[in-house]
Amino acid sequence: MSLLVALTWEPEPWVERFKVHLPGRPIAVLGEDFDRGSIRYVATWGPKPGSLSGLPALEAIFSLGAGVDHLMGYPNLPDVPIVRVSQDDLTHRMSEYVVMHCLMHLRDQRRYDADQRAKRWAPDREPPIAGDVRVGVMGFGVLGQDAARKLKVMGFDVAGWSRSAKAVEGFEVFSGDKGLDAFLARTDILVSLLPLTPDTRGILNRSLFQKLARDGRLGGPVLINAGRGGSQVEADIVACLDDGTLKAATLDVFETEPLPQDSPLWTHPRVTVTPHNSAVSDPEMTARYIADQIRRHEAGQPFQNVVDRTRGY
Amino acid sequence: MSLLVALTWEPEPWVERFKVHLPGRPIAVLGEDFDRGSIRYVATWGPKPGSLSGLPALEAIFSLGAGVDHLMGYPNLPDVPIVRVSQDDLTHRMSEYVVMHCLMHLRDQRRYDADQRAKRWAPDREPPIAGDVRVGVMGFGVLGQDAARKLKVMGFDVAGWSRSAKAVEGFEVFSGDKGLDAFLARTDILVSLLPLTPDTRGILNRSLFQKLARDGRLGGPVLINAGRGGSQVEADIVACLDDGTLKAATLDVFETEPLPQDSPLWTHPRVTVTPHNSAVSDPEMTARYIADQIRRHEAGQPFQNVVDRTRGY
Repeated sequence: MSLLVALTWEPEPWVERFKVHLPGRPIAVLGEDFDRGSIRYVATWGPKPGSLSGLPALEAIFSLGAGVDHLMGYPNLPDVPIVRVSQDDLTHRMSEYVVMHCLMHLRDQRRYDADQRAKRWAPDREPPIAGDVRVGVMGFGVLGQDAARKLKVMGFDVAGWSRSAKAVEGFEVFSGDKGLDAFLARTDILVSLLPLTPDTRGILNRSLFQKLARDGRLGGPVLINAGRGGSQVEADIVACLDDGTLKAATLDVFETEPLPQDSPLWTHPRVTVTPHNSAVSDPEMTARYIADQIRRHEAGQPFQNVVDRTRGY
Repeated sequence: MSLLVALTWEPEPWVERFKVHLPGRPIAVLGEDFDRGSIRYVATWGPKPGSLSGLPALEAIFSLGAGVDHLMGYPNLPDVPIVRVSQDDLTHRMSEYVVMHCLMHLRDQRRYDADQRAKRWAPDREPPIAGDVRVGVMGFGVLGQDAARKLKVMGFDVAGWSRSAKAVEGFEVFSGDKGLDAFLARTDILVSLLPLTPDTRGILNRSLFQKLARDGRLGGPVLINAGRGGSQVEADIVACLDDGTLKAATLDVFETEPLPQDSPLWTHPRVTVTPHNSAVSDPEMTARYIADQIRRHEAGQPFQNVVDRTRGY
């Protein structure tokens, strides 16, 4: 009845929290010795393909973080429920990131940063206000809707796009391939929170950027990607920044992570790089959530937030 | 029946908007020739003391921007109503500024900026969330309350302080000298939106910073001043940053503006400088507001947002 912790991060803070919230249960750590036959649950992020095979008593896999694409490509992924760790905490963190970076673009904070370095006092006397700027949120699930609501409170003109049609009170939601062009045509700041699926791989490319609004108040369209790096074509992003198709980009995720030292994104003057931590999972909240799910399951109730393997999220 | 435009900024965009919203009325500009006897209204920001004297037909002064302290020290300030230009627009801009800079401190954006310059991929795995951080808003009028509401939507734990006692639904509001210590003791990020009055001159000093919370999640208290530079003691800010009494500061206003080239604030690694444009007035919205007030007045109705000269705001 053990829990296996299989992380590419330092596992210690996680193990410590799991011990608190699952008192009396053995906690194993991938990379150390453990009895594979005893493992009933796995809490994981980003382990090597194959490392979750050969666990005959496995009942569920808990995926730490919002996405599950890190598991989807696995050969021989055990046929047990994959439970997404969905916490309010992670949702709030993501909204903080999205709102902060939209405001930084709205208010041209990078220009003021450069002005400060040059000791230049140069107030803009006619800056746009949030209500002048249209934000488009791609990926309109729990995370996207929470971010959209907060962006709206800040005054932005917000719409959403999702793969399948959905109605969300207070927002125009475009959907499918048909709705995509109209959505992009009304978008000054594109925020991608898309999961990585075969449909979204490479979707953030030149052809999409060219469809963004060109009549906005920011001097060109802006990309914020806090979804998955596999959705973006980095060579297109750099080229589009350089030829004016994009004005600026804020990227939390990358085709290869950590971002390689020779990537031009690190030093591009109109790119902000953050190290895939727009919305990291908190060990305390995550451990509490997983312990609750295990207790539900052992009391005969179904797991919550189970991944649909055919959709991939 | 003319309007005199008396600005230290480039007046052209303002004159243009006033012409649109007050069709048929002569618009004079300070510094050009005009008939002083014809001036009934002044729209002003920061002109030299004395330049508003000798206007015998004057009926009202409209102060562009949120504060009126730039007028209060004037010798022979004409004894007519001073009308503050209060617009939703300016309020929203200020809230954008406050929310953005609180989020930048919460999320340690300056560390990530430094990491990007060093091409360093270093995600923090246990960052605080907005709910872990206590923001205290000093100056709890229209601007302060709007900022507080938006900070609360983002998840921050927010309280207010104002000179005189007031009740604001959803917030604990401390007041007066008595409430100040308790307010500071529960504050991780201090946001000052205070007007400049004899009571608030120099109030943001070492003795106040020493009373801020030392048990917060940010590693030390943070100051954001988007009120008036006269409220802060810059020598104390620098010394307190250097000895750890303050962790960081974001300043939009300064004792002397533009900020002098030799100020240590420009280059301090934990100071963000912006050029007094947290909430600039928009010429279009301002001109529309003033035109409305003039029409109200000429129809026999009182002006709105008239300054109380004894309080100074």
